[in-house]
Amino acid sequence: MAAALRASAAPDAAAAAGAAAITPELIDVAHSLADAAADVTARYFRTPVPVDVKSDASPVTIADREAEAAVRKLLAERCPDHAIFGEEQGYLAGGSSSEWLWVIDPIDGTKSFITGKPLFGTLIALLHRGTPVLGIIDQPILKERWLGVAGRQSTLNGAPISTRACSSIGDAYLYATTPHMFAGETEVAFNRVRDAVRIPMYGCDCYAYGLLAAGYADLVVEADLKPYDYMALVPIIQGAGGVVTDWRGQPLLWAVDSQGDVTACSGEVVAAGDARTHQQALDLLQWK
Amino acid sequence: MAAALRASAAPDAAAAAGAAAITPELIDVAHSLADAAADVTARYFRTPVPVDVKSDASPVTIADREAEAAVRKLLAERCPDHAIFGEEQGYLAGGSSSEWLWVIDPIDGTKSFITGKPLFGTLIALLHRGTPVLGIIDQPILKERWLGVAGRQSTLNGAPISTRACSSIGDAYLYATTPHMFAGETEVAFNRVRDAVRIPMYGCDCYAYGLLAAGYADLVVEADLKPYDYMALVPIIQGAGGVVTDWRGQPLLWAVDSQGDVTACSGEVVAAGDARTHQQALDLLQWK
Repeated sequence: MAAALRASAAPDAAAAAGAAAITPELIDVAHSLADAAADVTARYFRTPVPVDVKSDASPVTIADREAEAAVRKLLAERCPDHAIFGEEQGYLAGGSSSEWLWVIDPIDGTKSFITGKPLFGTLIALLHRGTPVLGIIDQPILKERWLGVAGRQSTLNGAPISTRACSSIGDAYLYATTPHMFAGETEVAFNRVRDAVRIPMYGCDCYAYGLLAAGYADLVVEADLKPYDYMALVPIIQGAGGVVTDWRGQPLLWAVDSQGDVTACSGEVVAAGDARTHQQALDLLQWK
Repeated sequence: MAAALRASAAPDAAAAAGAAAITPELIDVAHSLADAAADVTARYFRTPVPVDVKSDASPVTIADREAEAAVRKLLAERCPDHAIFGEEQGYLAGGSSSEWLWVIDPIDGTKSFITGKPLFGTLIALLHRGTPVLGIIDQPILKERWLGVAGRQSTLNGAPISTRACSSIGDAYLYATTPHMFAGETEVAFNRVRDAVRIPMYGCDCYAYGLLAAGYADLVVEADLKPYDYMALVPIIQGAGGVVTDWRGQPLLWAVDSQGDVTACSGEVVAAGDARTHQQALDLLQWK
């Protein structure tokens, strides 16, 4: 990745600008992308699909690949000028004037998917000049879909959702996908948070953030994530009253380098339903 | 617990005797119990129920208590001579001649339940002279119900299920509810298994055993369990072609001491879909 990054606007201002630009048509596109991915993933779920191992040792199936291909095909038809970044097929530059980037994880939680556990999700994010302004978490088996749009209240299957109050991290129900996502310094930092909360739990992938946005959990702390793992979560959590940043407390933005490559700021994410719990988690993570 | 235990028959013979005694009426009772619990748990799921902390530090809600009460009420009507052991209300002796004991966990996975994650389950086991011969795992939100009856093929929502082949533990997908259920010697032993499998995963409670029985996962290794956490799993896994024992390879039986108290043999459980993986897990656990 190139060192020189195009400067991002302040996140609030950027989000406001992006929110103003989000049309009903773009929201409709996002739903159509989730529908297209769901058609594929639901068809392959609990069938004996071969599992390949990627260069980073993570598993991938034909369902991941076909779901992303379906999303890309739809985007080529409906938003041909927009850029795309997807887990399976990487970056596709948009038209030269495009301010829009779709960030796609066709199956977040492939390990859940291949073991028949219906808590994986399709993640669809739309970024405006590097700021995530629209996000969907879609669980196609449970038929649960979270939608977040910058400046609006988030929804779960169309019903408004809010995070819940949690003034002390000692009362927090914490989720992380697995303790094995932490190593070295991130493990030491995570363990400080884990030891401070009421109950630590594992095994959810993106679904944990959905539970947090809907007010059923208080804190998610994860590391070793890729931008397609978390960009969609940002508008959903913020639009439900929560806070989500990297472990330094910085916003989860993308930046585009001089070659047009999209670069993310961090692989460490901390999300909380209550800003007080978020700050206490940051204080424990001590990530500088 | 009293030291003197009534001797159990060899498990295969006992299971055969129990299987012969299982009537359609008893299976109907078991389904009715699951239905009664589901009515309660589905009503409270994702509502703001207060969470109490039990003496063992585990959480409990009114949903756990009302679901178990509903099950006990039905049993009093339909099987008044049978003994009952439930997580929330303990042991209730049956009629003096009764060979039957119902073992009930109204909500296995209370931590999942209170955070809105639909992978908790109601566990209903029927034991005949200490041997589990009928088991139900019921997930009332997903409306998934596993049924196992000694000597018969297990089912998921009425459809026959089978475990899958896994000749080498190195290919196994492993589940455990949480790494925090292991400590000291059990942690060291579990970590040997964890490091040998293809992918370790967390977060499922009883649902992991259901996935294993249906052929979507290969191995579940857990510790610090209570009999109501695992008795229902035994007929389901065995009837799907799998193997489930304690970490020594001994069958998961109950015994009744001279005071009529039910005593379990172990809190450590290892279940595998393939006997070869099960043996390799035992070899790694080295539990004597």
